[in-house]
Amino acid sequence: MTDREIGKLKTASISQLNTLCEQLRNTIYETVSVCGGHLSSNLGTVELTVALHRVFDFPKDKIVFDVGHQCYTHKLLSGRAEKFHTLRKEGGISGFPKRSESEYDCYDTGHAGTAISAALGIAKARDLKREDFSVIALVGDGSFQNGLIYEALNSLTILHTNILILLNDNGMSISPTVGGAHEVLEELKGEKPLEDIALFERFGLRYMGTVNGNDLEELLPALERAKVALKEQTVLLHVVTRKGHGYPFAETAPMETHGVNPKGAQKEYSTALGEELTALAKKNEKIVAVTAAMTDSLGLRPFFDTFPTRAFDVGICEEHASVLSAGLAAQGMKPYYAIYSTFLQRAFDEIIHDVCGQDLPVTFCIDRAGATGADGETHQGIFDLSYLSFVPNLTVAIPKNIAEFREMLRLSATFDHPFAIRYPREGAEGVSNGVEIGKFEVLHSSTSDIVLLAAGERCIELANAVREELFSRCGFDCALVNARFLKPLDRDLLSSLPQRVIVTLEDSAVCGGLGDSIARFYRNSSKTVLTFGYDEVFLPHGEVPSLMEKYGLGKEKILKEILKYARG
Amino acid sequence: MTDREIGKLKTASISQLNTLCEQLRNTIYETVSVCGGHLSSNLGTVELTVALHRVFDFPKDKIVFDVGHQCYTHKLLSGRAEKFHTLRKEGGISGFPKRSESEYDCYDTGHAGTAISAALGIAKARDLKREDFSVIALVGDGSFQNGLIYEALNSLTILHTNILILLNDNGMSISPTVGGAHEVLEELKGEKPLEDIALFERFGLRYMGTVNGNDLEELLPALERAKVALKEQTVLLHVVTRKGHGYPFAETAPMETHGVNPKGAQKEYSTALGEELTALAKKNEKIVAVTAAMTDSLGLRPFFDTFPTRAFDVGICEEHASVLSAGLAAQGMKPYYAIYSTFLQRAFDEIIHDVCGQDLPVTFCIDRAGATGADGETHQGIFDLSYLSFVPNLTVAIPKNIAEFREMLRLSATFDHPFAIRYPREGAEGVSNGVEIGKFEVLHSSTSDIVLLAAGERCIELANAVREELFSRCGFDCALVNARFLKPLDRDLLSSLPQRVIVTLEDSAVCGGLGDSIARFYRNSSKTVLTFGYDEVFLPHGEVPSLMEKYGLGKEKILKEILKYARG
Repeated sequence: MTDREIGKLKTASISQLNTLCEQLRNTIYETVSVCGGHLSSNLGTVELTVALHRVFDFPKDKIVFDVGHQCYTHKLLSGRAEKFHTLRKEGGISGFPKRSESEYDCYDTGHAGTAISAALGIAKARDLKREDFSVIALVGDGSFQNGLIYEALNSLTILHTNILILLNDNGMSISPTVGGAHEVLEELKGEKPLEDIALFERFGLRYMGTVNGNDLEELLPALERAKVALKEQTVLLHVVTRKGHGYPFAETAPMETHGVNPKGAQKEYSTALGEELTALAKKNEKIVAVTAAMTDSLGLRPFFDTFPTRAFDVGICEEHASVLSAGLAAQGMKPYYAIYSTFLQRAFDEIIHDVCGQDLPVTFCIDRAGATGADGETHQGIFDLSYLSFVPNLTVAIPKNIAEFREMLRLSATFDHPFAIRYPREGAEGVSNGVEIGKFEVLHSSTSDIVLLAAGERCIELANAVREELFSRCGFDCALVNARFLKPLDRDLLSSLPQRVIVTLEDSAVCGGLGDSIARFYRNSSKTVLTFGYDEVFLPHGEVPSLMEKYGLGKEKILKEILKYARG
Repeated sequence: MTDREIGKLKTASISQLNTLCEQLRNTIYETVSVCGGHLSSNLGTVELTVALHRVFDFPKDKIVFDVGHQCYTHKLLSGRAEKFHTLRKEGGISGFPKRSESEYDCYDTGHAGTAISAALGIAKARDLKREDFSVIALVGDGSFQNGLIYEALNSLTILHTNILILLNDNGMSISPTVGGAHEVLEELKGEKPLEDIALFERFGLRYMGTVNGNDLEELLPALERAKVALKEQTVLLHVVTRKGHGYPFAETAPMETHGVNPKGAQKEYSTALGEELTALAKKNEKIVAVTAAMTDSLGLRPFFDTFPTRAFDVGICEEHASVLSAGLAAQGMKPYYAIYSTFLQRAFDEIIHDVCGQDLPVTFCIDRAGATGADGETHQGIFDLSYLSFVPNLTVAIPKNIAEFREMLRLSATFDHPFAIRYPREGAEGVSNGVEIGKFEVLHSSTSDIVLLAAGERCIELANAVREELFSRCGFDCALVNARFLKPLDRDLLSSLPQRVIVTLEDSAVCGGLGDSIARFYRNSSKTVLTFGYDEVFLPHGEVPSLMEKYGLGKEKILKEILKYARG
């Protein structure tokens, strides 16, 4: 499929468009099979996106994709078909909308709930500049649970500008959509009770729906009508699609095919979370689990199955999940709130204001910490050590392997204060020699002048590689410490280290993280402290080893720095 | 009024209760006149709180106050009447709910929108522990705009627990309440269209209303009915109150009397913001202003009056305001988003994901930065330098006085990247000698061995006091630099400083802030770096000078540290 062929879309017949949809679907399926990516949400929106490109005039008209899990067809239709085989590859097409990639992408997304706010900003700018184009926010029903969407809808009567909100309702977030907003949408899909439409209109928008989003013959006229209505008022067009449409396996297993990844040989930390937390909860009836629409990805399914009354998936509501956990803890429960590192940024204020401000025993299980690879800028979990380091009352642990992660979960169960454990997606089971709060672990002793303090599995592996290389190159034998607590630091161990040169390695932003904390400990001492972590940039998509290499955790760069001292 | 007298509330007649309400109102008015505090929201809820204490059984029953601007009567009725004259004084009664203060306070608040989430957590814990008590969330209509409230309401059908939501509808946030949710509430207050009630019920709650919240004869039976209904289902009782009820001035000027402060002699930075931004916007039609329900407190009224179509108050929606700003900037506008430091924590993810991730020219005007004093833990603006220091693409400026703040606003208007300016409430107009991005200013040269790098007005004043004291005590003449950019640092100036001892002072958490950045710059050099800022604790309420003295910015402590080197 070439970009030129796709250009014929404006004049094609419905039957030709359906053929195009089949081609697009095949391209998406084949590409995701090789490159990984978001399969079922993209398969579900092929017809919708083709119809949008037929009815609207991009890039003059603007479309904001909420989250961005539905942008593949748009990319294929906007000059990126020939490069699409590079999807999610380093230097290739991003899996999310990217302004830097194409003028057809007007706003970058990745986290849920931003599209209506962003579209309103774009539309308001248009009005103020007296320009004339349409602005569309394409939002999944999962995002409709998110508070940010509600805040944006609330402001329609304040902002007095018109956008088209396309509600892509497939009944799913990553997990099935839940909650009161979902109930309302379900009811709208059945009959159309007038009272709900009245309610929508009090929010300043015109409700149109529902439309079968996998049927061009329904979609095209509906979009044409919406385009006209949009001249007068903000329109919400309720489009019903089937996640995974066109591929039987993806249709019947949308959760399994939401995100597709080539399988690695390593184990997932999430599996251990499910196992350990379920085991702990059997012994301690105060333990409850909280998640924001990520039960399966976080490994919590066994817990939810075993303790359905003590497990809460509140939908894509990271802030609410955090305050709910605080409320549970305030009344004597022991909540474990599992979430991806990048999404926990949404609950930053609630970590401070609700959990740590009241010193409540909530445990944050922070998955996908560090570089996450192919999802790119909006999904890298590289800020958590920086944004947690200064929060009073918080303990932050970084396991060296899955066995140690299990130990930390057990430890947190006996700990009566806020606790965070951050870990990558995958790793080795390994062995643990036990964990105490704020105690590092010496992995390799040496009387040499250099000690490596590494946090987390990837950096301990990197440190070992550095150690071996130093030894083979110049016979220099560094000590190695598992620096497994960002806070509290192991002040006793740090005080007793005999080495003159302290080297820190962490799979997180170097600014404000573990290295800076250790450097603060040694400030104005005679120690030399070298800190390694990610540079102050947004990491693009790419393989994790390559991102580490390029953005601050390259073995050769580290060796070069250390050798200045190993030789001195 | 003694605690014992108040104990008679359970058996008092309505007429006696009305007398009690008058007494409470007088006590609140008189106390706030002396101590400052939140006047009109507390005056409006006297009857409601008395009725709650009559109908419910605290502390067995639990009440969560959203924001907490309405908790004074509750404090007076729960054993704190005799200490109430210490309101907001250091060591005295907090102006917000505090678990550490009384068992009648079950959950600490200060930021908007947390009450329903917290109440649900508390109620769910109750159910799991098979306990029996009522849980109440008292929420103002302003908070009903906030996304967190919506996320909590969305989860009612998931959590299957019952709470009483008291919607205290006075038509006001700090500014008048705005937006679609407000329109719905207004309509409910008029007639009661069945369709809205149907909608509430689809969210899993029973709507009861409206009730005159300043009339005990209406309130008491309504609360009794709600208490019974609560056995079956979550209830939303819509209570209409008059902000400032009982005090004609507070009723007619609720914005002026929302927060009352003894007037200082200094000027407010917010006044300068309004003046400068209005002047800039006259010359640059791309400039727009965005705020989250704080138009007046942030000084933006002149801008809103002059440019009503370019000014957006979106209600208590800090996240949406941030993404809306990003959308406006993505389409070529130049948004200024003004907000208090502590509330900007709510938009942390959006600063990263939307504004800085796309390198969009949004300017954050961060008011009430540093210690804020009498409002206590939840309102101190002491984390901003730490949580902004590691965000890529962001420039962060800290003015030395109001004149320099004006310069920074003018500078930001010509700057095409994300920009943040953080400043305290009050200060001196002073003079500015111009500002360049990333350039510090030498305020006092000296060839001595010590240089003080101070950021912001308070710390420059403190540094001057330290300098003078050092000179008078031992004739030692320190240099002084206005370290007015957290990022980028003035690397040229830092590289050229001849002094051996570098002392940093900042009115923010010492961990992860300016001092740590400067220390990182000098790491492994021969310089000694001493960093001063707030200790890693939540600062309680108290006077700013006293908080500085006690929690890390005490002049004597700083002198003592410096003297180790001045003598050496």
